[in-house]
Amino acid sequence: MSDITKIRAAADRLSGHARLTPLLNSPLLDARAGRQIFVKAECLQWTGSFKYRGAWSAVSALTPQVRANGVLAYSSGNHGQGVAFAARQHGISAAVLMPADAPRVKIDNTRAYGAEVILYDRATEDRDAIGAALAQARGLSLIKPYDDEQVIAGQGTIGLEIALQARTAGIRQGQVLTCCGGGGMTAGIALALHADAPGLQARPAEPEGFDDTARSLAAGHILRNDRSAGSLCDAIVTPQPGALTFPILQRLCGPGLVVSDDEALQAMALAFTHLRIVLEPGGAVALAAALFRADVSDQVIVVGSGGNVDPAVFLTALQRFGT
Amino acid sequence: MSDITKIRAAADRLSGHARLTPLLNSPLLDARAGRQIFVKAECLQWTGSFKYRGAWSAVSALTPQVRANGVLAYSSGNHGQGVAFAARQHGISAAVLMPADAPRVKIDNTRAYGAEVILYDRATEDRDAIGAALAQARGLSLIKPYDDEQVIAGQGTIGLEIALQARTAGIRQGQVLTCCGGGGMTAGIALALHADAPGLQARPAEPEGFDDTARSLAAGHILRNDRSAGSLCDAIVTPQPGALTFPILQRLCGPGLVVSDDEALQAMALAFTHLRIVLEPGGAVALAAALFRADVSDQVIVVGSGGNVDPAVFLTALQRFGT
Repeated sequence: MSDITKIRAAADRLSGHARLTPLLNSPLLDARAGRQIFVKAECLQWTGSFKYRGAWSAVSALTPQVRANGVLAYSSGNHGQGVAFAARQHGISAAVLMPADAPRVKIDNTRAYGAEVILYDRATEDRDAIGAALAQARGLSLIKPYDDEQVIAGQGTIGLEIALQARTAGIRQGQVLTCCGGGGMTAGIALALHADAPGLQARPAEPEGFDDTARSLAAGHILRNDRSAGSLCDAIVTPQPGALTFPILQRLCGPGLVVSDDEALQAMALAFTHLRIVLEPGGAVALAAALFRADVSDQVIVVGSGGNVDPAVFLTALQRFGT
Repeated sequence: MSDITKIRAAADRLSGHARLTPLLNSPLLDARAGRQIFVKAECLQWTGSFKYRGAWSAVSALTPQVRANGVLAYSSGNHGQGVAFAARQHGISAAVLMPADAPRVKIDNTRAYGAEVILYDRATEDRDAIGAALAQARGLSLIKPYDDEQVIAGQGTIGLEIALQARTAGIRQGQVLTCCGGGGMTAGIALALHADAPGLQARPAEPEGFDDTARSLAAGHILRNDRSAGSLCDAIVTPQPGALTFPILQRLCGPGLVVSDDEALQAMALAFTHLRIVLEPGGAVALAAALFRADVSDQVIVVGSGGNVDPAVFLTALQRFGT
């Protein structure tokens, strides 16, 4: 079961490996938003997203014998980079199955971290079948992107850091908005906050059309998205909440928030101008919710979860919303 | 006299106000550069540049009676924003004299921090005369951008942090490259490293055509630039090294490094892709030197000194050098 003990154990394993990312804010951004916004800048994490934490946690939790055979990941890009780099640091091989339409920068970087990248066609090929055959043939351990206790525990270390940083910043009450795909980070953070900062409540934020978590929380049971592609927020497009993550979200999280692709792009431009960090669309969804939704706490912490973005997409954000 | 005692005193005054900025690196950036590069990300500092440190140091060092009359700064933008925000935090007024051709984002932000911005024409008006008349009429204290002991002391706190962070990262020998205009930051960092990390040597980096410090160090006496404008690196274009800063640079720094505007733009694009931070051209000069000059140590620390850049300039960097 996922719990705070596993998160603290993951924090011990991650110590000296994961970066303690800063909690950033800006008086000019606050003036613009009409509330105080603090951004946990996980785009500054190794490999450019929080995914490195879960990847390191899971890879380091394998027994040395099992680990030595290598690992396998499915990923649109950020999880793959995290697994690739964590594997390299452990001296083992990694194979990463990526959709052929993943952002170029993510494919290139996953290769650059030393992983074998295997591309597949989302529309016509069965990722799970390809992965299962590969894992069987080579004895690889599958590192799932979110529905894995050690991955949830690794992402939960963000929540431990937020609890401490919020206390230092004098924040005791409020909401912590997360960019939510399958819910691994949201679940981990919710568990950590429940233990270490009970005045802070996690709330998932999602892109329009891919708000499976918000709808599932409202319905009280798991619902799927109608579409599987077509959002700028590629990093957090998943078919439905995870079997392990959803019960945690149901127990601990506030209602989901939904933003448009345009709002995510505008959040990227404001993070550029006021915080000088690079966010990708899927990593800017929580910030967009804090900027543009009314029903958010006056002091709010958001996770800027990743910054691996093709220059063309960043150009669009600046051209349309840069000031 | 500028010395380590003043820097440590400034660090005490800055404690709880300045951000401890992270020292970032990336294995993919290192592979690209052929050396290990660590970036002290001062673009994440309040107001988006290291200038906030010197501004806070100088404003906080004034006696309360003198301070109450308000402060005045000359600035192409970053120093002005630092002074404006530090003044607001002290509850006093700030007037900032800025060239009318300063980047729009810097003018807007200086105003947004509550300062009165007075624009002048670089070509036809005498900044010093305008400023002197204003200071006299209102009893304002002039906060100089670099040739001021308390400003040098404030910037020197970057060096104290680098000394600690380098030790944690296992770096004991090597060079620390700074983006150098009038030399306030370079002098402060050089003094701090000399005291706390004697294996690390500061070296100023400058844009082509505005390499007054490199030429002055080589000549052994202060030389001026031929031009006063025309570099993308607006933040670090100054007429000549400072009277207070140059002797410190002569005593403690290695030879200067020079980069082209194109190299600065390329460094911005690489920082975007691999570190997910926003650097302005003048804030990317030290990184550019680490990337593109041969005579730099195998392990090198660079200051990413600022990130206040108009979107159009950032677009150019990504369009030309983004990958």
